Amino acid sequence: MLVETYRKMLSGKSVIRELSEFATARGKEIGYENVFDYSLGNPSVPVPQAYTDEMISLLKEMDPNELHGYSPSLTLPEVRKAVAESLNCRFGMDYGPEHIFMTSGAAGAIAHAVRLISQAGDEVLTFAPFFPEYHPYINLSGAVLKVVPPDYKAFQIDFDSFEEMINEKTAAVLINSPNNPSGVVYSKETLTKLAEVLKDKSEKYGHIIYLISDEPYREIVFDGVDAPFVSKFYDNTIMCYSFSKSLSIPGDRIGYVAVNPKCADAETLIQMCGQISRGIGHNCPSAIIQRAVAKCLDITADLSIYEKNMNLIYDTLVGLDIETVRPGGTFYIFPKAPEEDAKEFSKKALTYDLILVPGDSFGAPGYFRMAYCVQTEKVKRSLPVLERFIKDNYR
Amino acid sequence: MLVETYRKMLSGKSVIRELSEFATARGKEIGYENVFDYSLGNPSVPVPQAYTDEMISLLKEMDPNELHGYSPSLTLPEVRKAVAESLNCRFGMDYGPEHIFMTSGAAGAIAHAVRLISQAGDEVLTFAPFFPEYHPYINLSGAVLKVVPPDYKAFQIDFDSFEEMINEKTAAVLINSPNNPSGVVYSKETLTKLAEVLKDKSEKYGHIIYLISDEPYREIVFDGVDAPFVSKFYDNTIMCYSFSKSLSIPGDRIGYVAVNPKCADAETLIQMCGQISRGIGHNCPSAIIQRAVAKCLDITADLSIYEKNMNLIYDTLVGLDIETVRPGGTFYIFPKAPEEDAKEFSKKALTYDLILVPGDSFGAPGYFRMAYCVQTEKVKRSLPVLERFIKDNYR
Repeated sequence: MLVETYRKMLSGKSVIRELSEFATARGKEIGYENVFDYSLGNPSVPVPQAYTDEMISLLKEMDPNELHGYSPSLTLPEVRKAVAESLNCRFGMDYGPEHIFMTSGAAGAIAHAVRLISQAGDEVLTFAPFFPEYHPYINLSGAVLKVVPPDYKAFQIDFDSFEEMINEKTAAVLINSPNNPSGVVYSKETLTKLAEVLKDKSEKYGHIIYLISDEPYREIVFDGVDAPFVSKFYDNTIMCYSFSKSLSIPGDRIGYVAVNPKCADAETLIQMCGQISRGIGHNCPSAIIQRAVAKCLDITADLSIYEKNMNLIYDTLVGLDIETVRPGGTFYIFPKAPEEDAKEFSKKALTYDLILVPGDSFGAPGYFRMAYCVQTEKVKRSLPVLERFIKDNYR
Repeated sequence: MLVETYRKMLSGKSVIRELSEFATARGKEIGYENVFDYSLGNPSVPVPQAYTDEMISLLKEMDPNELHGYSPSLTLPEVRKAVAESLNCRFGMDYGPEHIFMTSGAAGAIAHAVRLISQAGDEVLTFAPFFPEYHPYINLSGAVLKVVPPDYKAFQIDFDSFEEMINEKTAAVLINSPNNPSGVVYSKETLTKLAEVLKDKSEKYGHIIYLISDEPYREIVFDGVDAPFVSKFYDNTIMCYSFSKSLSIPGDRIGYVAVNPKCADAETLIQMCGQISRGIGHNCPSAIIQRAVAKCLDITADLSIYEKNMNLIYDTLVGLDIETVRPGGTFYIFPKAPEEDAKEFSKKALTYDLILVPGDSFGAPGYFRMAYCVQTEKVKRSLPVLERFIKDNYR
């Protein structure tokens, strides 16, 4: 008998994927350069040469049995040490290798984090707008994802709704700053208040409510924006990181879990990651890729294009009187649609070959997401089309 | 609250790992070349040069955004196609890309396979002697692993015990041929009879009982041994493969699930793998490694050393009147210990710097495993020590 949980998921097609498939099909008709595809969050800048060089040098110079041998169950010790040292140096933290566990990207990290501290019957809270893949990450671990409605003004946190929803079943709160889809960076004030609520509620309910901090966009922060290091605000923080965006290597599947050294049972949590890994058949990310990123911890791909694109798009939207919160980072922007039904809006945009994703699946109906990880030249060509689309239909 | 399932696993230390740690520590004392470490199943021959060359050429020549971009959720189509074609050509099968899903090794493949067709309350049967990691692979998926006692004569299948244990809760039977730890290859007769029982019992209980075939040692088969292709015997077979042993790349984490084209709902099963993958945060093995193995499907590392080692060890054991089933493949041998308690036997062997793993955790107390993936020169030096150990203590 096929397991219905997974079979049923097959019929629920992702809107993002549908739009992206439309873009590909349309591209074949009219040339992909004429389709203004803002659907997918796929990094568009090349990997740094240093990463490629490091991979080649490992392949050419390291003993092959060592290079291609099994990682120990807690992943490579020298890589964990390098990650800890880089974090300490950059953010003034106190991680040791015993607080780090390498994973297959942030997805793998979140899969481990939720299994560490939640099980069937537990709830994990997240804040809209949020990355819809959190649904399978959380729900297939046994716990249930609950979504706190957005703070529409600034896409920070609506604390009234949050405090209404947090309860004795809350095992963890999952945040994502800089945020997909809003591009917003949580402020010091937001994080301070969040930590206070988590401390109070942990005490009230007699168990730790963990903070799972999903940080794949940590290195994409725009000029003048202060991006506080989340783990500094709350001891019981489990950070989930990915190199997909910082090094433009999403297909390589590499990231890590970093448990705050001050977190209760911090080392035990990391050791448990090794056991979870056995159960999900993960058994460490590729050893060669662990080694290569360990040499590229303090560099990034050239991420400046994202800020350039953001400024172009933001200014155009503001000029069109489209209500938009200015992103502090990422390669997303999340404006309010000029009609109530963002799905209708998105459908109309398609007739202009503009691929915009309605905000419904991000927990914010009436908004839409643009993923501007595309060539700046193409962004420039798309803006007059965007203007025409808005003026034709809404002005 | 930490999840007890995983926390409890921390105290249950693996005997193999303990022995391997002893070997490492002892090696520091007396020189690792003087420790005869038969504990770990770590390939000891280098990766084929073609694999290294392919990796380097991908890194040098492919567009980096394509090379390091996300795999589609069902893994890379050109890789799935290449795997299907290679299997068809080598084994006269009829796989299409729609029957293949790339995973992080056989561990990842089994993690997907069990989640496809079993859930809490279901049982998965396997035959002793068996690979003890099946416990976490199965038990953490929700189902329960049940172990059928060994056929001590030949390490084929004890069908009487099997038929007693199969019942309405049996969702799948998990086999591993060539087998870790016995080295035995299941015969045509065994596989034919197994298929008959599975067909009968599927009918009797009104649901398909799947055969999960774990085949990481498929390419390590010794001269004169007939190794039948398991999927040919039973339509509802889900094959789990790993390149770890055939290409000597266990740390690269690459393998696949291949669902028999004649299996009920074959394509749906593969599509469901993509959903399971989301839930466990796997999201495809590294794209570059998928691409590199796709170019090395019909080659292997030089595996001949394993047969050389087997012959040396087997002949010595037979000469010492140690009861031993001759391996047909793998790099394991599983003789009967000359005293009832194989743990005691293993402990005594340590005083000779011989690292032999007691068979208890493989479901066969009184036996011991030797993993002879070591240099032949070292095997040769170890044999007089083995003889001395046996003669001093048991003759």
